[in-house]
Formats: sequence, structure tokens, C-alpha cells
Amino acid sequence: MTKNAKIAETGKPRVIIIGGGFAGLELVKALRHADVQVVLIDKQNFHTFQPLLYQVGTAAVEADSIVYPFRKIFDEQQNFYFRLAEVQSVDTGKQLVETSIGLLRYDYLVIATGATTNFYGDEEIQKTAISIKNIPDALSLRNTILSNFEKALQIDDEEQLNSLMDYVIVGGGPTGVELAGALSELRKHVFPKDYKELDFIKMDIHLIQSGDLLLKGMSAEASQKAREYLEKFGVKIWFNRRVKAYDGYTVLLDSGEKLISRTLIWAAGVTGAPIAGIRKESLLKGNRLQVDEYNRVTGYENIFAIGDIAAMVTPGNPEGHPMLAQPALQQGHHLGKNLNYLITGKPLKPFHYHDRGTMATIGRNQAVADLKLFSKEYKTQGFLAWFIWAFIHLISIIGFRNRLFVLVNWLGSYFTYDKGIRLIVGKTKENIPVEAVTEKTVG
Amino acid sequence: MTKNAKIAETGKPRVIIIGGGFAGLELVKALRHADVQVVLIDKQNFHTFQPLLYQVGTAAVEADSIVYPFRKIFDEQQNFYFRLAEVQSVDTGKQLVETSIGLLRYDYLVIATGATTNFYGDEEIQKTAISIKNIPDALSLRNTILSNFEKALQIDDEEQLNSLMDYVIVGGGPTGVELAGALSELRKHVFPKDYKELDFIKMDIHLIQSGDLLLKGMSAEASQKAREYLEKFGVKIWFNRRVKAYDGYTVLLDSGEKLISRTLIWAAGVTGAPIAGIRKESLLKGNRLQVDEYNRVTGYENIFAIGDIAAMVTPGNPEGHPMLAQPALQQGHHLGKNLNYLITGKPLKPFHYHDRGTMATIGRNQAVADLKLFSKEYKTQGFLAWFIWAFIHLISIIGFRNRLFVLVNWLGSYFTYDKGIRLIVGKTKENIPVEAVTEKTVG
Repeated sequence: MTKNAKIAETGKPRVIIIGGGFAGLELVKALRHADVQVVLIDKQNFHTFQPLLYQVGTAAVEADSIVYPFRKIFDEQQNFYFRLAEVQSVDTGKQLVETSIGLLRYDYLVIATGATTNFYGDEEIQKTAISIKNIPDALSLRNTILSNFEKALQIDDEEQLNSLMDYVIVGGGPTGVELAGALSELRKHVFPKDYKELDFIKMDIHLIQSGDLLLKGMSAEASQKAREYLEKFGVKIWFNRRVKAYDGYTVLLDSGEKLISRTLIWAAGVTGAPIAGIRKESLLKGNRLQVDEYNRVTGYENIFAIGDIAAMVTPGNPEGHPMLAQPALQQGHHLGKNLNYLITGKPLKPFHYHDRGTMATIGRNQAVADLKLFSKEYKTQGFLAWFIWAFIHLISIIGFRNRLFVLVNWLGSYFTYDKGIRLIVGKTKENIPVEAVTEKTVG
Repeated sequence: MTKNAKIAETGKPRVIIIGGGFAGLELVKALRHADVQVVLIDKQNFHTFQPLLYQVGTAAVEADSIVYPFRKIFDEQQNFYFRLAEVQSVDTGKQLVETSIGLLRYDYLVIATGATTNFYGDEEIQKTAISIKNIPDALSLRNTILSNFEKALQIDDEEQLNSLMDYVIVGGGPTGVELAGALSELRKHVFPKDYKELDFIKMDIHLIQSGDLLLKGMSAEASQKAREYLEKFGVKIWFNRRVKAYDGYTVLLDSGEKLISRTLIWAAGVTGAPIAGIRKESLLKGNRLQVDEYNRVTGYENIFAIGDIAAMVTPGNPEGHPMLAQPALQQGHHLGKNLNYLITGKPLKPFHYHDRGTMATIGRNQAVADLKLFSKEYKTQGFLAWFIWAFIHLISIIGFRNRLFVLVNWLGSYFTYDKGIRLIVGKTKENIPVEAVTEKTVG
């Protein structure tokens, strides 16, 4: 018998939105004039601008600049209620969400829980690798990188030194490519100044990609240029390789090759984060919920899914929309309109995705972009792509202060070649204590 | 048998500085042209601007803006070496410092370990109270305050609600006064917007002071005005009271009165943070090391102490200098010169403290300042004091970026009455889980 969570009954239909990512946030906004009670549930009290998490992880921007408290975003929205809670399950019959603070009744339920890192069932890798899907992850990566070098100062043994100075990134998608680029910039411009006693020729950055292309899904030009940029930066790209095992020290590839690194960053894929209590029949491969063209989860009348968790499968689009920010933002916005229609008894309108293209940045002046403007495609790489990337990300960050702080960090980095947020605060990821090793190796 | 830590032998005399607070940092700077090897040891890889910790704890500025990585500060200083390590003890005979990374030989040792919170031996209070001497402390305070209100939303029981919404601050010195002021500003301008469902008339802020004056050590005018400002803000000041016991829920005063609060902030005093291995005879009351007028620890030739840990006791100054930023900065700078003299065979010069006065801020436009300029005293309270306080703190923060970010936060807060960094990231202090209580109280 779980207690009821305490929340006002406003007499309006209650829309519960689980998850305040891009999709959930846009939906809340789109419901600002709707005659409903909007309840947002999230595990954290802030929205995270995920596209820049890798920059938090590589000391380029501070965490506080890419997040924004939900309560502050919606201070003025009268129908908005926030609850900091973890969702445990849904009872679709009784229309109840079970959460860490108790049961909450809903009239309409919107699942916007996004995606989580896909370790493909490998528990050892899940335990030993670092992924960057949220702020604690990103801070852990930053702390780990910096701690590694502090520890490396005490090491003589060559293999031990490699284990601390080398990095293995798994996954040649945008996150993997951006991380590899950011790490190689740190190696070139920042770490040698900070750690004058270390020889950074010894620092290797490995990027493992299962196929023979980086940035799969982007144009051939983008893919090719990304490869060229990374190779110019000295990133070692391993095509057609998968990680077979990792124990926190030795990376075993399916080709039989071995790499030594205490830090393996897993950016090899994501999987939907569904909720217990939703019928199994609605769950497609990749753990995404099958939705119709109104983002309604198949088999339900009043349950919707938006963003990464939603797979709007149509004959022309058997995979659903890509798991990216753009479809999430557009679905959130569109569902807001549809819920308005639903409540006011008007017919719903089907969702149409407007693909505006995709981008990835590799480093200073170097990015790749496949843009779509007015149904025309533009492919560009290099400075212009980088500038567009920076501009679009900057204007997408919530809040003037955050935008300004990120801009100042970027301008600072651009002109000084420096990255400022080199702080070790909080947890580091340490699978095997280095102390145990140094005892043996240091005289 | 402890191993040796790995560090280059440069052939120059090695000065080991333990602690990178104000004193240690100034000393490193002052040694930039000295013909020595400067080794700074600190538990964290960054310097913390302690005067603004309370603003981190109250969501006014982000942690990243008041800290600065040591390696970045001294990127250009060729004789500088940093080691991230905890110091365990000193062997003054063998001239060795034992640390978490191994043994380090010194020619000159400078103890700049500062002060730590004084719980006067009460272990239960030490366990249950929050103090704010460093960044993790300050973040823990911020997380706890925000989590308290999130939890309070689920509570009906009046006493339980008080336990989450009320705050007890112990100590009427600058930190206690500044915290009380900051909390009452949050209560007035920020929390009611964030938590519309809570009634903030129920939020009490208690300030406990053992004597009958706030800001002891400042002028009577400053003390009186601080009291007036706080009372106008609705802070309940309890004079001539001490906390006798605190179990994480009930605060028992020595007068027999009881207060209910899950959050007790302990700002009741500090004590020196000495190092094992230094002769007991040099330790004065308050755990400070007795130093001569050259900051040399009594009984040693080559061991010095600066900042809060140093007590330069003279007939005219039986207590030593106050444990504040100014003496620390001046001693660090002065010792740098003296070490230069020592190495080049010149006579040392005695330290003279230039008291420039003290300040404390209570809130918006309200601060108190006792200033000394050209041997003249100026006392001012209100807007001017507040403006001077803000200006001096701003220019004292290290780094253009940090200064800019703090300024932007302050200007933002000033004009919008808002405080932006309302994020719960990381640990909260929870002595007794609220869940256990809510089970009973919520239907």
C-alpha cells in the first residue's frame, strides 16, 4: 500500500510528464495557456543541455552553465507543478504513477524519459566504463581525467603510465567524435602546460568504431572530414572493431588486439528508458515505445511518448525518428498543441518531422554540418560549420546568464587555447586503485 | 617504510608549502623569482576564495567561479611544482613530509594549513551539523536547503514541516551573519516563487550567539547595525545562548529552550589545523602554531607558519593576528621576501600587520564596514559599505573569468531579486530520512 503523493487537485485535467529533457520541457512550455494541471516529474531539479555535456566532461564549460532549474524556467507558468521524484511504475488501469514520493493520479500521461547508455548487456563494462548521459557522469569524467594526470606524476613504469595517460573512446557517433576532438585539444594546448613533468607524446587517444565510417547517418563528406580532422589531431581510429571485454585496465577488442587504459569512455549507443507497467507489446527494439502519428503509445488512449523514448514507426519510416534533440523538441511542441485540441474537443493533427540537419564539432574551427534549409541541403565542413555549430548551440541554451557564461568560456578558450574548468570536485572513477600499483613500481 | 614521492630534484633549495589558501598562494607568488624549488601540496587541485563560500551555499554564485586551479594560476612560474596529496605528518629531524603520495624532502617547510571548524569536542554536532569551510561543504548546504523544500511539499504535520523549513545558524560572526542575511533574502524573494505551494511565513531563521553582540571584534556601530538589519529581515537572534546538543532534529540550547530544525549550520568558531610531528610546545591554545616575527615556528630553524594556523604572539599582541584573509595575505607575501633574504644571506625583516579593517555583508545594499585608510578609521554601514564590500571582494577573486561571472551573478540578482544557482547536484545532508516520517504523516 503506497501512500499518495501530496499535490493540489486543481479541478483541471492533470497531465503528468515524466522527464524534463528537450521533449518534456517543450511540452510544458506549449501547455502554458492550456486549461490543465501540468505536473513535471524528474529525478533532478534541473534541465540539462545534453549536447554540451561532453564539454563539461573535458573542462571547457562549468556544469552550472548548461543546466537550468525547472522551477526557475517555469516561475511564471501558473498551471505548472514540479515534483523531484523517481518514477517506479505506472498503473495504466487506475491511472496512477508510482514514484519515490508516492502515488500520483493522472488524466494524461506523457513519457519523456529519453534514452540511457546501451552497454548491450555487458555488466563488467557497465561497471568499469564512463558514459556521459548526465551531469554527474560528465563531472566524473572531468575529475577522472585530471586525477589520472596527478597520479601519473608518481609513476615510472611504462605500462602503468599508459594506463593513466591513454584514453579509449568507444563509438564513432557525434559524442565519441566530439570527445576525441576535445581530448586531443587538451593534449595539445592545456595538459602540457599543467603537467610539465609528463611527456604528452605518451598520451594516446583511441577511438573504436564498429563500422568503417564515423558519424554514421551524416553525409559521406561529413564522415570523411571528421576522420581527417581527428587523424590530423593524432587520434588513433580503430575501424571495424568492437570492445569484447574491459576490466578497468585492459581493453580487449574483438580483433584480438589489446589496449591499456584505466579510462574507457562508452559512447557506443543508447537505448530507450521505458517505464514498468506499460504493455510489452508497445515496446519496440531499442526499448522505444511505439507511438502513432499523434505520439500516442499504441494500445492506450491517454498515454503519450515523446523524444528519444518514442518510436513513431510509419511505413515510410520503419525506424522512427532519429534519437536527437530536433525530433524531441518538435514532438514536445506538437504534442502540446494536440493536448490542447484533445481537451477542447478538436481533432488532433499528425506530427511531421522537419529535419534541419545534423552537426558535430571536432575542435577549434573544425566541425561538420549537413544542413537542410527550405528543403535544400547544404553540406559544409571546417570553420563555417564550426561557427554555425557554436551559434546554434549557444542560442539553444536556456537563460541569458548561461548563454553568456558559455560564450565567455568559448571565447576565452578560443583566444588563449586554454580550458578553464580544471577542477577536481567530487567523485572520480577508479576501478583499480593506482596506489596498489605504485607501491610496486615507485622506488 | 613509506616510499618516496616522485618529484624532480632541481638542485635548488626546496621550499614545501602545505596548503594553498590565501597565505600559501601569496607565498608561491612572492617566490616566483627566487632561486628555489617551490612545492605546493594541497588536498584539492584548486584555490578557494573562502569569503564567498556562503554565497555558494546559498545559491548566489556557482562554485566554479570562486575557485581556481593551482596549476593554471602558476602555469608560467618555472620554479613551481604542485602535488595533490594529503599531508600525514612531518619528520622535522630528517626534514621529510609524509603524504598520501609518499615522502618528500624539504629544505624549508611552510605550514599554511589554515583553520578548520571548531566543534569544541562535540562529536554528535560535528556529525549532524553543516559547516562551510570548503566547496564540498558549501555545495552540501545548497543541496540540503533545496532538497528540504522539495521534501516539505509532501508534509502535512506542522512540526515536521518546521523541521524542514526552519534553519538554525550557530555563531554571530561574519559567516553566521552573512548566512542569516542570505537565507532571509532567499526566503523573501526566491523561495516563494519556486515553492508556491509552501507558506513561507512558516520559515524561521534562527541565529544563536553566545555573547550579547554580533560581529564581535568590529565596532559597536557595525555590531548594532548588523543586528538591526537582520531583525528587519526577520531573523530571530538568540543572544547569550549556546547550543548544548543537536541530534539532527532538535536543537537544545543551554537556556533550556528547544528549536526544531533538520539543518543546523555551525559557524561558531574555528581552530587551527596543525600537523603531526611538530613539537607540542609550539602549539598554543586554539591549535595555532607560535611563530616569531619572521613567521618562524618557535623551536625550529627552517619551519615557518603563515595565515590562520600561525599565532605571532608579541607582548603587545598576546592573541596573535586575527584569523582573517588580510593577515594571511600579508604574511604570505612577507615570508616570500624573507625566504629570499634567507637564501641570499641577507638579514630577515620582521612582519608588521597593516590592518585595513573588516567588513561583513548582510544583504542587498546592507553591509557594515570598519575601514582603516592611512591610519584613519572610517565606519560606514548600509549602501556604501555594501558597495565597498562588493568591489573589494570582486577584485580579490582570481581570474578575469571568475570576476566576470561573479559580477554577472550579482548584477543579475540585484536587478531581478533572483538567485540563479538553485541546483541539487551531489550530496545532501540528511541525518534522519524524511521518508520514515512522511509514512506516518501523509495520508
